[in-house]
Amino acid sequence: MYSFTCDYSEGAHPNVLKKLQELNYVQHPGYGEDTVTDEAIERIRQSIGNPKASIYFVIGGTQANMAVISALLRTPEAVICVEGGHIFAHETGAIEATGHRVITVPGIQGKLTPAGIQKALDDYFMRPHMVKPAMVYVSDATEVGTIYKKAELQAISDFCRAHKLLLYLDGARLGSALTAEDNDLTLHDLTELTDAFYIGGTKNGALFGEAIVFNDPKLYPDFDYVRKERGALLAKGWLLGAQFGELFKDDLYFKIARHANMLAKKLASALKEAGYDFLAESTTNQIFPIVTKEEMAFLAQKYVFEEWQPIDEHRTAIRFVTSWATDEEHVDELISDCVALRTND
Amino acid sequence: MYSFTCDYSEGAHPNVLKKLQELNYVQHPGYGEDTVTDEAIERIRQSIGNPKASIYFVIGGTQANMAVISALLRTPEAVICVEGGHIFAHETGAIEATGHRVITVPGIQGKLTPAGIQKALDDYFMRPHMVKPAMVYVSDATEVGTIYKKAELQAISDFCRAHKLLLYLDGARLGSALTAEDNDLTLHDLTELTDAFYIGGTKNGALFGEAIVFNDPKLYPDFDYVRKERGALLAKGWLLGAQFGELFKDDLYFKIARHANMLAKKLASALKEAGYDFLAESTTNQIFPIVTKEEMAFLAQKYVFEEWQPIDEHRTAIRFVTSWATDEEHVDELISDCVALRTND
Amino acid sequence: MYSFTCDYSEGAHPNVLKKLQELNYVQHPGYGEDTVTDEAIERIRQSIGNPKASIYFVIGGTQANMAVISALLRTPEAVICVEGGHIFAHETGAIEATGHRVITVPGIQGKLTPAGIQKALDDYFMRPHMVKPAMVYVSDATEVGTIYKKAELQAISDFCRAHKLLLYLDGARLGSALTAEDNDLTLHDLTELTDAFYIGGTKNGALFGEAIVFNDPKLYPDFDYVRKERGALLAKGWLLGAQFGELFKDDLYFKIARHANMLAKKLASALKEAGYDFLAESTTNQIFPIVTKEEMAFLAQKYVFEEWQPIDEHRTAIRFVTSWATDEEHVDELISDCVALRTND
Amino acid sequence: MYSFTCDYSEGAHPNVLKKLQELNYVQHPGYGEDTVTDEAIERIRQSIGNPKASIYFVIGGTQANMAVISALLRTPEAVICVEGGHIFAHETGAIEATGHRVITVPGIQGKLTPAGIQKALDDYFMRPHMVKPAMVYVSDATEVGTIYKKAELQAISDFCRAHKLLLYLDGARLGSALTAEDNDLTLHDLTELTDAFYIGGTKNGALFGEAIVFNDPKLYPDFDYVRKERGALLAKGWLLGAQFGELFKDDLYFKIARHANMLAKKLASALKEAGYDFLAESTTNQIFPIVTKEEMAFLAQKYVFEEWQPIDEHRTAIRFVTSWATDEEHVDELISDCVALRTND
Repeated sequence: MYSFTCDYSEGAHPNVLKKLQELNYVQHPGYGEDTVTDEAIERIRQSIGNPKASIYFVIGGTQANMAVISALLRTPEAVICVEGGHIFAHETGAIEATGHRVITVPGIQGKLTPAGIQKALDDYFMRPHMVKPAMVYVSDATEVGTIYKKAELQAISDFCRAHKLLLYLDGARLGSALTAEDNDLTLHDLTELTDAFYIGGTKNGALFGEAIVFNDPKLYPDFDYVRKERGALLAKGWLLGAQFGELFKDDLYFKIARHANMLAKKLASALKEAGYDFLAESTTNQIFPIVTKEEMAFLAQKYVFEEWQPIDEHRTAIRFVTSWATDEEHVDELISDCVALRTND
Repeated sequence: MYSFTCDYSEGAHPNVLKKLQELNYVQHPGYGEDTVTDEAIERIRQSIGNPKASIYFVIGGTQANMAVISALLRTPEAVICVEGGHIFAHETGAIEATGHRVITVPGIQGKLTPAGIQKALDDYFMRPHMVKPAMVYVSDATEVGTIYKKAELQAISDFCRAHKLLLYLDGARLGSALTAEDNDLTLHDLTELTDAFYIGGTKNGALFGEAIVFNDPKLYPDFDYVRKERGALLAKGWLLGAQFGELFKDDLYFKIARHANMLAKKLASALKEAGYDFLAESTTNQIFPIVTKEEMAFLAQKYVFEEWQPIDEHRTAIRFVTSWATDEEHVDELISDCVALRTND
Repeated sequence: MYSFTCDYSEGAHPNVLKKLQELNYVQHPGYGEDTVTDEAIERIRQSIGNPKASIYFVIGGTQANMAVISALLRTPEAVICVEGGHIFAHETGAIEATGHRVITVPGIQGKLTPAGIQKALDDYFMRPHMVKPAMVYVSDATEVGTIYKKAELQAISDFCRAHKLLLYLDGARLGSALTAEDNDLTLHDLTELTDAFYIGGTKNGALFGEAIVFNDPKLYPDFDYVRKERGALLAKGWLLGAQFGELFKDDLYFKIARHANMLAKKLASALKEAGYDFLAESTTNQIFPIVTKEEMAFLAQKYVFEEWQPIDEHRTAIRFVTSWATDEEHVDELISDCVALRTND
Repeated sequence: MYSFTCDYSEGAHPNVLKKLQELNYVQHPGYGEDTVTDEAIERIRQSIGNPKASIYFVIGGTQANMAVISALLRTPEAVICVEGGHIFAHETGAIEATGHRVITVPGIQGKLTPAGIQKALDDYFMRPHMVKPAMVYVSDATEVGTIYKKAELQAISDFCRAHKLLLYLDGARLGSALTAEDNDLTLHDLTELTDAFYIGGTKNGALFGEAIVFNDPKLYPDFDYVRKERGALLAKGWLLGAQFGELFKDDLYFKIARHANMLAKKLASALKEAGYDFLAESTTNQIFPIVTKEEMAFLAQKYVFEEWQPIDEHRTAIRFVTSWATDEEHVDELISDCVALRTND
């Protein structure tokens, strides 16, 4: 059985693991107050092109989201996201547990739009009987594998600034987004267009870890307290520094993301050619082909993948995810099995 | 100008006010530990027909909701309500501020249904990545003036018990609901069908105040702590006891609710006869006629009311609310003005 | 039996009650958006001598404290108060329930000092492993009836500004404090020395109600949301406006506070003369004589009062509280009973 | 420079790291739903001798504490700990951020006692104006390196059960505690005496990770939700399973803890013999010798350690911590340097 279930099935990129091994007996100060962490931060600042950015490592995406959002919102304020957004759909109410509502609005292909944000502002007009929308949350890539074009993110950013809304971007799959073939955004654009974002390590080469970036260090200088308060400060903080240090050395982070995208594209193209339809137009490492129930049953004998969404009585959208660790050979095998299914029809 | 805006424009029923005056110089122990409060609780228990019910007075509806819901839910649990439900739409995220998500589902005529609750359970299936629905919140009367028939509430109650969901009923306008002409529910039914509910005083004869009822005293014996923790324990607790004592003497609570309903019905019937359409079929003290923009402008010269919802380019649903304090004379005048508008057409 | 237990045993000053009755059938907009409230706010602004202060009415002291403190603190921040401070000792963790620690430090005669605040800063030095002290909470009068002299509050204010700590004053018994014979503070001083404070109505002539004052309206312009979120927005907001309007007409608030203080002083002087010792030097409406267990038992036959604190095996400090409603006759009777006890010795 | 600052300076025990490497390319289901995790849980259950215990891995100690405590407490409830307890002193208000007060009481040698717990119950008697103590938190080893004897923990456990308080034990340094020479507690005792506890990996051989144990699976079956809600569910959950699987294979967890204790004892004995006094009687891997300022300055040239607490003008207690990774050679060198200091005197 080979799994295309997700991009966190395996461990870490070998360079990362090697680094952890090299440093295993080196003594470091605790809680990220070490030089390994400092160097990783410096490397990320350079990649972003923002030498003054405040950067904080945490262990996972839910932590990043709950820490940033609870730090930046005040008590009656709410965060807006697209329907199906991760903080609404898959984080067990972590944001609400810190006292804030998550407002959802419809999007287009999994993406939030200024019109969507405007809808939230319209819906929440009745001051003071409703929460106050104060922040916008977007993910790039989105939950359905689509990406924001620069003009789209620019429009959201402009809208947010015009309406005094903070803009925060969840980059759990940022590597895949920024290396998608139709992408025109850069890390530097993110530092100019958003207030804060995070660069995901868990799904792109690290054992675990996300790098939170506050583009303006004055936005929330007390974030170190919040990271600890929310249980997101790792005792052996250098573990995060070491991993991100490797990922941002020689562009490794983007190289391995490109690998995942390339394999996803190869798979998607072959399936399209073989006549499969798709749920969404993804150019990143998640694709959503629509298969019949019989096809699904057949594939499930050799592959692990997620049933994503029923389409009709006979057909289901399934999800194939590739990653830095995905083997081209297995992709080729999957292609040939899928193609065979349609050829035999 | 006469206002039909809401049922909390005036103060208290004269009996209530008289009682407060009579007791003004009597010394009472603080925090509701007084005999006036005890007597009011006893009277309510008798009205409900549940001698063991735990009853707690609080000052307002948002307090009642946030205290009860935060007391009964544990940290990852959520409460389900209908779209437009008060805790979701008009309480500034008070529930979320205590750490819990409010899940909304579509209803019928403002009412929640077992199918709606089932939808929430279906949507929130992905344990443990989603909050756990653990409570159902309904209002009687609803936000659009409709009421639950006994069979409807029974079906919800059965569903909740079968699915281990607590059932809590917001009775901000319970007087109006239970005295509606098509109502077949009693206070005693509520004590059997729900886990907790509150009887609204603010909108039916009291200066302020709501009586929270836990049908089984073992459900949450520590609620006294929560009432204080949430700022809902009145220092001069006897003020609440005195008011509810009067309201539940000689059926006053229901008599005055009937008055409000009667006037609303008179108004609604006359308007229907004159050709006005309505947004919803309300038999309680809120009615929602649909008027043209010109009619609305004309009426606004003599009356205060709420613009509820645009219907189309030319027409709007407005809200007229009657109360224990509404004067029949003014209702008659409003009727004649409305009728004249359509006669002149 | 006559009660000296507290200053919230009775209802409201007759002027206040009369006003409520006069306005009972007047129709007002809901939620304090009425002219009665506006006028009361204007009167308080004039009393304070701060025409731009933002003023919000809420129902009780715990509400005031939890709303103000949760509004002004961000997630990892804490509030400092003296040992025995009301928010720590008697509000059922209302502040913690909003996510913030209350830090206690020793005081002098129930009063906080700059040295006490400095101790909290010293104790909480270990950034980011400890919460961040960000606000100071004081009460005037204090829990043991003492008051802040202007120089003392000035010193605290200076310290807070030098250390970027917000200063918030709980004025549940502010009337009694500002009319104490040794008081040299004014409402105007409070508006200059603190960031926010509240003027207590519940314990000085109102049925209920506290007036929160933000001295600089820019400090937290979204407080209206928080008031609603915390369940502290009264539907019939004009009830609060009407009460405070009366209390701040012709100086009534201070006149009746002076009455309470005068009776407390009469009682304290007589007891002192008769040989009773006191727990603290109070010049406000709470006094704490030390009595033997036999004396306590004797007095308890005719009077209700609180056992405050055991002194030794044989003696206990008890609390007598006077109020706007206390009758001089009963004070005289209490004096003669107390004096008789010591004369007979 | 060699560091005796803490027991989390280095990475992981070589067996642990090797295991991670072995499994690096194996595909696992996410979120701990994998067989590696299952096996680790089974091994821990066997070590504990409680086949039905519910076991949940999380990443760090603050996470473990905030998740367990917020899961088990209801809204007005508080947790009791000793002065200096980790949840009070070093977790940035993580517990309060979930809405609960931490109550501190004095202990003996860093240990809580039934008398201390009784004090909290006495202090918090004034229902419902105070939070309700509902849980007791202890650490073994304590913050000052001392351990609970079986009779001591039994007494606390008996007290808790008699007073309906939950008992939770923080085992960040449980390995060191259970292998101390004077220890008479076993893992099995913990499962009988407490309601929940956690076994610390971060400070004893793991890169990171703690194993939370609910002794009775019915105590809180929804804890999986809370783990996710608090950001404590690792995407690559098998990383935790792999580490604990190794640590609980062939008793490794205890073997390496014994190593740390042995070196601490060697150091302590030598220092005692050389005439050094100690702050506390520790038999675990933290020792607290008292040195002169000159001695401290001298040692600081070669070693890193923590200044723990000033003793008087001339002397300071410092902390030396050993771990599974500490090298005996460096301990010997430190001994000879310390001895030399006193010999030269």
